[in-house]
Amino acid sequence: MSRFDGTREEAERHDRADPLGFLRDRFVHAEPDLLYLDGNSLGRLPADTPEFVADVIRGGWGRGLIRSWNDWIDWNRQIGDRLAEHVLGARPGEVVLSDSTTVNLYKLAWAALDHAPGRRALVVDADDFPTNRYVAQGLARQRGLDLRVVHSDMDRGLDVESLRAVLDDQVALVVLSHVAYRSGALADMAAVNALAREAGALVLWDLSHAAGTVPVRLTEDGADLAVGCTYKYLNGGPGSPAFLYVRRSLQRRLRQPIQGWFGQRDQFAMAPGFDPVDTVDRFLTGTPPMLSTAALVPALALVEEAGVDRLRAKGRLLGELAVDLAARRLAPLGFRLASPEDPDRRGSHVTLWHPDAWRICRALADEAGVVCDYREPDRLRIGPSPAYTRFTDVWDALERTGRLVESGRHTRLPRAKARIT
Amino acid sequence: MSRFDGTREEAERHDRADPLGFLRDRFVHAEPDLLYLDGNSLGRLPADTPEFVADVIRGGWGRGLIRSWNDWIDWNRQIGDRLAEHVLGARPGEVVLSDSTTVNLYKLAWAALDHAPGRRALVVDADDFPTNRYVAQGLARQRGLDLRVVHSDMDRGLDVESLRAVLDDQVALVVLSHVAYRSGALADMAAVNALAREAGALVLWDLSHAAGTVPVRLTEDGADLAVGCTYKYLNGGPGSPAFLYVRRSLQRRLRQPIQGWFGQRDQFAMAPGFDPVDTVDRFLTGTPPMLSTAALVPALALVEEAGVDRLRAKGRLLGELAVDLAARRLAPLGFRLASPEDPDRRGSHVTLWHPDAWRICRALADEAGVVCDYREPDRLRIGPSPAYTRFTDVWDALERTGRLVESGRHTRLPRAKARIT
Repeated sequence: MSRFDGTREEAERHDRADPLGFLRDRFVHAEPDLLYLDGNSLGRLPADTPEFVADVIRGGWGRGLIRSWNDWIDWNRQIGDRLAEHVLGARPGEVVLSDSTTVNLYKLAWAALDHAPGRRALVVDADDFPTNRYVAQGLARQRGLDLRVVHSDMDRGLDVESLRAVLDDQVALVVLSHVAYRSGALADMAAVNALAREAGALVLWDLSHAAGTVPVRLTEDGADLAVGCTYKYLNGGPGSPAFLYVRRSLQRRLRQPIQGWFGQRDQFAMAPGFDPVDTVDRFLTGTPPMLSTAALVPALALVEEAGVDRLRAKGRLLGELAVDLAARRLAPLGFRLASPEDPDRRGSHVTLWHPDAWRICRALADEAGVVCDYREPDRLRIGPSPAYTRFTDVWDALERTGRLVESGRHTRLPRAKARIT
Repeated sequence: MSRFDGTREEAERHDRADPLGFLRDRFVHAEPDLLYLDGNSLGRLPADTPEFVADVIRGGWGRGLIRSWNDWIDWNRQIGDRLAEHVLGARPGEVVLSDSTTVNLYKLAWAALDHAPGRRALVVDADDFPTNRYVAQGLARQRGLDLRVVHSDMDRGLDVESLRAVLDDQVALVVLSHVAYRSGALADMAAVNALAREAGALVLWDLSHAAGTVPVRLTEDGADLAVGCTYKYLNGGPGSPAFLYVRRSLQRRLRQPIQGWFGQRDQFAMAPGFDPVDTVDRFLTGTPPMLSTAALVPALALVEEAGVDRLRAKGRLLGELAVDLAARRLAPLGFRLASPEDPDRRGSHVTLWHPDAWRICRALADEAGVVCDYREPDRLRIGPSPAYTRFTDVWDALERTGRLVESGRHTRLPRAKARIT
């Protein structure tokens, strides 16, 4: 039995009862009629961000000039501590903003492999986000390691038992995503960490699709290492800097490969030899991009005000509504759910398979005012970010999708995949 | 015989005759009385930048949302091509914006070491900028290579003969700075490249203190590899993304270690195995920070309009004036030149040694409205960026320095080096 009745009125009732409804106006909606269900690719612009960044440009850079670095030098760590407390369930001094997710993944994976030199294997998920797989492939080749692959289900995610099957005393590191980029499947972090610990391996989590929308409890769940981006549910803007997490007890035992001056003890003494600080800052590299960093400050304030638990509750309900409406309205048109059915096993996005998903995705954006994502193979990825998406947005988007497919208008588009989005 | 007479009137005449005088008003001068001689640490804010970045935030991010990536995805390369043509003397498709200087140095050094697996040594300059030395130290340890050190003179820079002495058929790579961060000494790029080529080694240049103020001729001088930052004389803002250069004939033969999805052929097909593109884009890693990237667009337009040759001519004259005034006004107060005397052997900054340089630098900023840099050991670094610095700024700054030291006010400050700048 569905908890929904499929009507738009019901979606309207959910909007009226939404405790996070007030957040919508804290974001910019330049095209009010646009149904934006791609907050899991690039989160919307918070309303306070333009002025905050403008102040950093005019005040910090323009007026303060080099002197502003006395202040900026601490932002990576300050923002890291806010992420630790409000988003990641970690402790102060365990999270820092740095580089991109890709570069952080490389740094921490390298450090973890150094940590267990006798172990000759690295485990990666065949269905993980490409950059994670590519980085792991590179590391395995560079270091002459055995790359073991766990095959999580493309739609249902990781079965912990299949991970157990590839773990033994040769495995140094397991790289996994907390929320699968394609299906939204949510991995059982505590179970995976416990299993890996039993086998003597470290786990490096990619939290990109989880941070800010799923309660992440790194300390409670016994996490070793994590990385993640900040431009999805954290709304930090295009390419905003990534974060990295290293459990406190591991920090002094790990050395990352890119020995940059931002990881150096007494950085401006510029001593002859590299001597990394004892803190999480040892995983920093070069000078961070401060304009892109600045945009995170107002964005994080919104997530903190909302609270990840409330965002999760709403995100879960938005997802349930999408799944229910997809079953009612879109399944008869050839769609099927390509995400876990159980909302406890999903993050905040929902994926639908359709043989013509590419052209449907294009036509939705070009002709129906609905922006969602296409993902290979043949999947529409719908990411209703709970911070600013209304239940009626989901209802309207799925209704517009149904009408579009019924009309057949998408079939006039070329099949060639010539665009990113 | 000096070409200067030491009077302020002469500096005023140079300002009146300055063909780049018009550029000053294209930059923000929030404190008109501030003498900012630290453009070689963080260049000033171009007047057009706030609005340009604001448009990217409001239009690109706020309105365009994820769709703007169809455009942004090419910016790294487009800006790279502009740098290649107008700043670096390289060809289209040889330069791309990416990560930080530190990360790029690591990537290209790694790739170069892979290129010559039989060679077991890496050469670094003991006086190079810290991050370059630290990255090289890390690579040597990680790969079990011999780290050979060339000792360039702290004040006069690299003697090519001392480099010759450490080169042999074991050397895979030489890492050097084109303009020395401390002294401003300008290395002879063509001679070094020729020498290394003769020995069968590649050279990786750090162009951070050269780009935008010294004509760099990568193609003409036979350069293999280069990296550099964009926040000094290119005025890209705090931590703006770095660039990297790989000579076209080397691109397909080199593989960088951080196999990110931005280097992948047909990136959004998200294929199982890493298969790097054939172009310079193979040296990209993760999602670039677009707000910090955007700030480079108006900044580069100014450098292009001025032309590096004109910037060099003015920068050279500013440096000569500073050296002349330092000899007249400051040498009697205990200063001595800690840069090459010959302007052909210097970039655009000039360094002065004084036993109390740290406190003088602090007092200049706090009490005399002069911002320059302190660098270990006991050096004032004066970087009059030719794009916006007047000859009278240099004259006034050195005069204020003389008065400050005569007054002894700096001696009231603590000796402890508790601040960055």
